[in-house]
Amino acid sequence: MADRVYNFSPGPATLPVEVLEQAAKDVVNFKETGIGLIEMSHRSKEFMAVAENTEKLLRELMGIPANYKVLFLQGGASSQFFMIPMNLLGDGKKATYLNTGTWSKKAIKEARLFGDIDVAFSSEDQTFNRVPTQDEYTVAPDSEYFYFVSNNTIYGTQFPKFPETDSILISDMSSDILSRKIDVSKFGIIFAGAQKNMGPSGVTIVIIRDDLLDRTPAGTPTMLTYKTHADKGSMFNTPPCFPIYAVGEVLKWLKKQGGVEAIETRNVEKATLLYDFIDSTDYYRGHAEKSSRSFMNIPFNLPNSDLEAKFIAEAAELGLNGLKGHRSIGGCRASIYNAFPREGVVKLVEFMKNFESANQG
Amino acid sequence: MADRVYNFSPGPATLPVEVLEQAAKDVVNFKETGIGLIEMSHRSKEFMAVAENTEKLLRELMGIPANYKVLFLQGGASSQFFMIPMNLLGDGKKATYLNTGTWSKKAIKEARLFGDIDVAFSSEDQTFNRVPTQDEYTVAPDSEYFYFVSNNTIYGTQFPKFPETDSILISDMSSDILSRKIDVSKFGIIFAGAQKNMGPSGVTIVIIRDDLLDRTPAGTPTMLTYKTHADKGSMFNTPPCFPIYAVGEVLKWLKKQGGVEAIETRNVEKATLLYDFIDSTDYYRGHAEKSSRSFMNIPFNLPNSDLEAKFIAEAAELGLNGLKGHRSIGGCRASIYNAFPREGVVKLVEFMKNFESANQG
Repeated sequence: MADRVYNFSPGPATLPVEVLEQAAKDVVNFKETGIGLIEMSHRSKEFMAVAENTEKLLRELMGIPANYKVLFLQGGASSQFFMIPMNLLGDGKKATYLNTGTWSKKAIKEARLFGDIDVAFSSEDQTFNRVPTQDEYTVAPDSEYFYFVSNNTIYGTQFPKFPETDSILISDMSSDILSRKIDVSKFGIIFAGAQKNMGPSGVTIVIIRDDLLDRTPAGTPTMLTYKTHADKGSMFNTPPCFPIYAVGEVLKWLKKQGGVEAIETRNVEKATLLYDFIDSTDYYRGHAEKSSRSFMNIPFNLPNSDLEAKFIAEAAELGLNGLKGHRSIGGCRASIYNAFPREGVVKLVEFMKNFESANQG
Repeated sequence: MADRVYNFSPGPATLPVEVLEQAAKDVVNFKETGIGLIEMSHRSKEFMAVAENTEKLLRELMGIPANYKVLFLQGGASSQFFMIPMNLLGDGKKATYLNTGTWSKKAIKEARLFGDIDVAFSSEDQTFNRVPTQDEYTVAPDSEYFYFVSNNTIYGTQFPKFPETDSILISDMSSDILSRKIDVSKFGIIFAGAQKNMGPSGVTIVIIRDDLLDRTPAGTPTMLTYKTHADKGSMFNTPPCFPIYAVGEVLKWLKKQGGVEAIETRNVEKATLLYDFIDSTDYYRGHAEKSSRSFMNIPFNLPNSDLEAKFIAEAAELGLNGLKGHRSIGGCRASIYNAFPREGVVKLVEFMKNFESANQG
């Protein structure tokens, strides 16, 4: 596709072309049924097979143990911010959170509606430019769970090593799920909006250890109770069919790439290309501290905001799209999720070199 | 499309072929941007225009007054069952409901978590085969609102005239929104899942009068507060982009058909074809009482369940798909929403005649 641009959007984010092309066919006529995927009953055997296959592939690629349920929910990762404490806390109950960016801050705000929240670490006064090491925080011993955000999309930080804890570990992996190998059995809940590494927006994956399904307080609405969805294979009500289908197609693609281990190698390689270049010049400055750098989102600054605006505009003209940083920190940001091609990073680095030469102060 | 079947599914339901074909193009490369619609940032000017246009068309087609907000939410109509009482009720507050089918029953169950619910009418002991007339119920004068389901997908009943009340009128119009002309100004809230008359599953439309946005009790989670979404044009968090886009395409199609008034005429004509035939024979029996018949969903029975199974199987072989009734009442059901073509109803009636002749007892 000659007309395809390099899309550095932080999410919804670039998807494999072959997934888009398959979706285009299936939307009109799914597997020669004479019915398009988006007009097909969710109870049809064809769609049930789609949903089952999506779950099966996710289990396989992530190595999800049998005592975990995989839920396909709506409402975005933002709805997990309240669903987790609504299902696991209650009067007088406590949880511990790490405050490492916008998404953890929002999650803490919602959790405080349901219990006593201990914020064991915050990098807010350093513009969230790093995540803590294990010795920088203590998990309150009476915590029902311990919550952290694995990768911070806006500030470009990522936990290089996951926290070790005796508490139930809960992680928002919206922006790095499936990008690196993890041991699911260390977690109580992992959740992620699909629209970065997994597919289009409109579905949120919740991986939950099954003993956590029985803690929901009485009086919780049916649709907000994890067990409702766990018991019905996420088909208690009509699910978001197209997003679930598209996640399945992305997972097929990922499997063909060699799975999570293979993509992790490529992700490290792509990010290293960009970080090595940033480290070779004073013209560009990365936002995150080196020890906390994300392999998914790389925010950086130029000498001043006029140059940043010029950089973003000229990059777009060359087909390098979506490089504007989040409004909360400004500057530039390159989001290079699983489906972002290596050639796009090479092209960005070339452009950065050229721009630097052409725009000295 | 020679291979296209007639899809009588109750939802997700048949969509106009031209919408499917346009979606197929846009999914891969949206308006020659070099980015597919499903991988495009929701904050991009292109997607913002899509969302704005979807809302604008809905306002135009339904005649939504300026003092109403239109929200594009996730979680299905089932999430409105608790969101409405969560936002509008509270300790000691009352609401009145009409119990005319599965969906009202589920809504009543959730509402009871948040206040005192008066069920002013129920047709449950008649297998929900009718809706009440105005003189069959009284709305409790201290009700915060009065709730009814406009069309009952499973039982094939529909309110021929909307209730008149001094209370705030709330209606679940999931299965008949945009199928007939209504006066939005008579309602406090109208909501509908998209997957019947409006598009694919994954988005729920909530039309809410703006004075109702200020009643939400303190302590309600941010994502469950209507005002959160109203204040941010449904972009507080990443919305379900593809479903919103597809609804917009369906609305463009509806406008080209002549709008709601024109489609209503066609809907009446289609349903009348089928009802007239059912009334002409004792072999087929409609579930709903005549005065409560739905123009969208037509459940019917044959002399016995063996014949029903045979009927459904033979119909499917002829390309008449999805005629199996809901498990709660069995039998057959033809769902003939806006996008269902008249020719499909003609073909069904022909088949029903032939099947009757060939399968006498």
